[in-house]
Amino acid sequence: MSLTIKIHVTANFGLNLQTVRQKKFANYNVRVRPRPIYSSNPLTVYQPKMSTDSVSVKSASSVIKSSLIEPDGGALVDLVVPENERGPKTIEAESMPKVNLTKIDLEWAHVISEGWASPLRGFMRENEYLQSLHFNSVKLGDGNIVNMSLPIVLAIDDETKDRIGSSTNVGLVGPSGDLIGILRSIEIYKHNKEERIARTWGTTAPGLPYVEEVITPAGNWLIGGDLEVLQPIKYNDGLDHYRLSPKKLRKEFDSRQADAVFAFQLRNPVHNGHALLMNDTRRRLLEMGYKNPILLLHPLGGFTKADDVPLDVRMEQHSEVLAAGVLDPETTIVAIFPSPMHYAGPTEVQWHAKARINAGANFYIVGRDPAGMGHPTEKRDLYDPDHGKKVLSMAPGLEKLNILPFRVAAYDTVAQKMAFFDPSRAKDFLFISGTKFLGGCTGKIFSPGFKFALSYMKMRTYARTGENPPDGFMCPGGWKVLVKYYESLQAEDATQQPAILTS
Amino acid sequence: MSLTIKIHVTANFGLNLQTVRQKKFANYNVRVRPRPIYSSNPLTVYQPKMSTDSVSVKSASSVIKSSLIEPDGGALVDLVVPENERGPKTIEAESMPKVNLTKIDLEWAHVISEGWASPLRGFMRENEYLQSLHFNSVKLGDGNIVNMSLPIVLAIDDETKDRIGSSTNVGLVGPSGDLIGILRSIEIYKHNKEERIARTWGTTAPGLPYVEEVITPAGNWLIGGDLEVLQPIKYNDGLDHYRLSPKKLRKEFDSRQADAVFAFQLRNPVHNGHALLMNDTRRRLLEMGYKNPILLLHPLGGFTKADDVPLDVRMEQHSEVLAAGVLDPETTIVAIFPSPMHYAGPTEVQWHAKARINAGANFYIVGRDPAGMGHPTEKRDLYDPDHGKKVLSMAPGLEKLNILPFRVAAYDTVAQKMAFFDPSRAKDFLFISGTKFLGGCTGKIFSPGFKFALSYMKMRTYARTGENPPDGFMCPGGWKVLVKYYESLQAEDATQQPAILTS
Repeated sequence: MSLTIKIHVTANFGLNLQTVRQKKFANYNVRVRPRPIYSSNPLTVYQPKMSTDSVSVKSASSVIKSSLIEPDGGALVDLVVPENERGPKTIEAESMPKVNLTKIDLEWAHVISEGWASPLRGFMRENEYLQSLHFNSVKLGDGNIVNMSLPIVLAIDDETKDRIGSSTNVGLVGPSGDLIGILRSIEIYKHNKEERIARTWGTTAPGLPYVEEVITPAGNWLIGGDLEVLQPIKYNDGLDHYRLSPKKLRKEFDSRQADAVFAFQLRNPVHNGHALLMNDTRRRLLEMGYKNPILLLHPLGGFTKADDVPLDVRMEQHSEVLAAGVLDPETTIVAIFPSPMHYAGPTEVQWHAKARINAGANFYIVGRDPAGMGHPTEKRDLYDPDHGKKVLSMAPGLEKLNILPFRVAAYDTVAQKMAFFDPSRAKDFLFISGTKFLGGCTGKIFSPGFKFALSYMKMRTYARTGENPPDGFMCPGGWKVLVKYYESLQAEDATQQPAILTS
Repeated sequence: MSLTIKIHVTANFGLNLQTVRQKKFANYNVRVRPRPIYSSNPLTVYQPKMSTDSVSVKSASSVIKSSLIEPDGGALVDLVVPENERGPKTIEAESMPKVNLTKIDLEWAHVISEGWASPLRGFMRENEYLQSLHFNSVKLGDGNIVNMSLPIVLAIDDETKDRIGSSTNVGLVGPSGDLIGILRSIEIYKHNKEERIARTWGTTAPGLPYVEEVITPAGNWLIGGDLEVLQPIKYNDGLDHYRLSPKKLRKEFDSRQADAVFAFQLRNPVHNGHALLMNDTRRRLLEMGYKNPILLLHPLGGFTKADDVPLDVRMEQHSEVLAAGVLDPETTIVAIFPSPMHYAGPTEVQWHAKARINAGANFYIVGRDPAGMGHPTEKRDLYDPDHGKKVLSMAPGLEKLNILPFRVAAYDTVAQKMAFFDPSRAKDFLFISGTKFLGGCTGKIFSPGFKFALSYMKMRTYARTGENPPDGFMCPGGWKVLVKYYESLQAEDATQQPAILTS
């Protein structure tokens, strides 16, 4: 069995930073942000660039206030009812018609209530929904545009609609039966599922995880309005302390006196390829003149598809990575991003970036095929793996965020560690080819590409056969967490399908 | 057989204009344009409104120059090679690898070459394509946004791609074998048909006319680049004199000293309901203080689906309408809009409006379900009939255009003419119900809705049975043109399917 490892983790923004460095803007407060390339010809269509020249430097005179980047709309939305109003508002909510939330609806209520989707103040009304669906952005009252690529909507069925009747406000009931909030000045409009799916995912093929889990079983109406949640949303799963709101994250960045925050979105275990990228990003930010860049290691904590590694396992694995010093706990904040996952590629990566603006990150790292997956019915990536970062670099409302695209890293057999791929000695690098280990996976074939996820397919094979991954692939503590998880899966498989197990 | 006629042609922008009138801005040069409603709360999300308050008045001091509205990007694109360069460029083009254009590709080349899609200077490169697909707009070099809702792309197959190899430029060959132009600095990228269809139409259901005609048979690559056409594109179908370029239209508006131009996009015969709307629009513009509003009656002349009335019949019918004085030839310009039809509803209506900006129209009339059709596989409208005008009013890059939405008109049995529907005497109005005449049509059912197109289904029934439509529905000359056409269809049907004809 040939062993190939190829991991896309290397930042190619070196040139960006280099350019800035060469300009000797090494002051403490220097901020870097990408800008459109302005051509001398006014008719030249905007050509976003991913590498050189895509940064410009803002005056160093700006003062670091409560954060490094303004929330969308200028102020962070906070929809948690103040404690002294909780009693009366609960009584008020009890008198309203009720709408039952699913587990994932509740995740969205959480997301909205803490301001991740600022300036959105509730589930979308039709006006916001249509702008999101058609333009991936919403125009504010002041004429400014904010990015809003995913429809953040609440579906109800006919019966609930009838029950609401002509009421203006509704009470929201969580999956456990608790009254969790209020939606005010509601608007009910049609839920055209086919159109929503087609415009969000660029396909209507059966098998999209979020569609199957959320949209297909949902009602034929959407209800928008202004949200209030009666108290901060908690999950009581032992991980709530990781669920820092944008407000808390901003406070934390301030208290650490961060002068740059770079966010890394992930939904899989951290291996040394990721770590290389994150550490290298920090090094380069320091070289640019930032004194205290902070990494926001920000695993997604909401709905994920069944074959992704569960949140609790990932959090345990991330802890090991920090404990082993692979990432520096002094300059890293690990927190959970509470959003559910759409797997909507270029559309969703905008949401992932936009939410991190609201959390106070002014740099966002983007890799190959962000938020992508295999096509559910065809043997190919659902999205062109390069479209995510291209679309992100063009997206309306994200101009103020520094986008840091990264390219391929691989396992360097000479150095016996993850390293930036060096084409001049290509033979020294190993790539995990996904195609060899597709037995139990979703039918993805990466040719010539690759995705983090596949290495986890491979890991599962390792765990099954008792093999270890190559030295330097992941810290032993983190690997142990995964082995334990994969073994438990194996045990489960054995219980459920003893005849199907193959070597 | 009950007879009901309901036609959506009445402008509900009376209130808009009224508002302006009340403000006594009755000067000659007053310009009206819609603006976002700015709220005092900066976090209030933009709420476009369709009726009152959606206009603001620009200073009357601005001078009418060569046109009433600036082309997108500031200058009209004109890609027709000057006559003195035609010879050398033809010789040059002959030496390049060739790309064959279909009839519809040629229509797009025509559209681009005359600047309808300004500032687009050729078939889209990937950068423009992705922005169009995801944001319905493109950012220019100067940071400005222009609307660009339909991907205007040229597909090639593997063989053509191989033939092009590493060439930078290609020659374009029309369907009749003539060399028609050059595409320079080309970029070839993947044509993901599924994604293009899903994001453009909001469905991937089989049976979309443009998809079946154009996209499904097309190659798996798109080729973008800068277009030059060797000479103005002509069709030699006896209608070329109607095909006025944006440049010619602007010149014509100037020579008529128009101080407002209101465009009416259509792809069906004009009946008196349309005429009522157009004449009423003119009256209201006059009331507002415009001295010389000109109607651009602008039938779409490119690809339409098989059951639409063909262009030559429509042009003949439109001539009769003007000859009969139903529309005033003195204040009306009839010209052909050379674009092919996508039937992509809210996405396409933006294109229809944007192209008319480039042609110099500063008012655009939009009705129910613009560019819509029945769902190809389900018994419903493909689009929410209100989404077109809503999306149009929100669309990035169209802020400078005055959008004039209109509501329902119907046949007034008392006055025996088409009139604005008056709900207080609803029983006096007749509506053509589509549901009764669906025998030969695409399976559309409008409940409680209605569409122009359906009245043509009904007309076909009239023509078949020798019945006349109610008095006042259409001028007799125009009706005669249609009867002749429908009779010819009937004869064709009889030849092709004698056993299927039913009474």
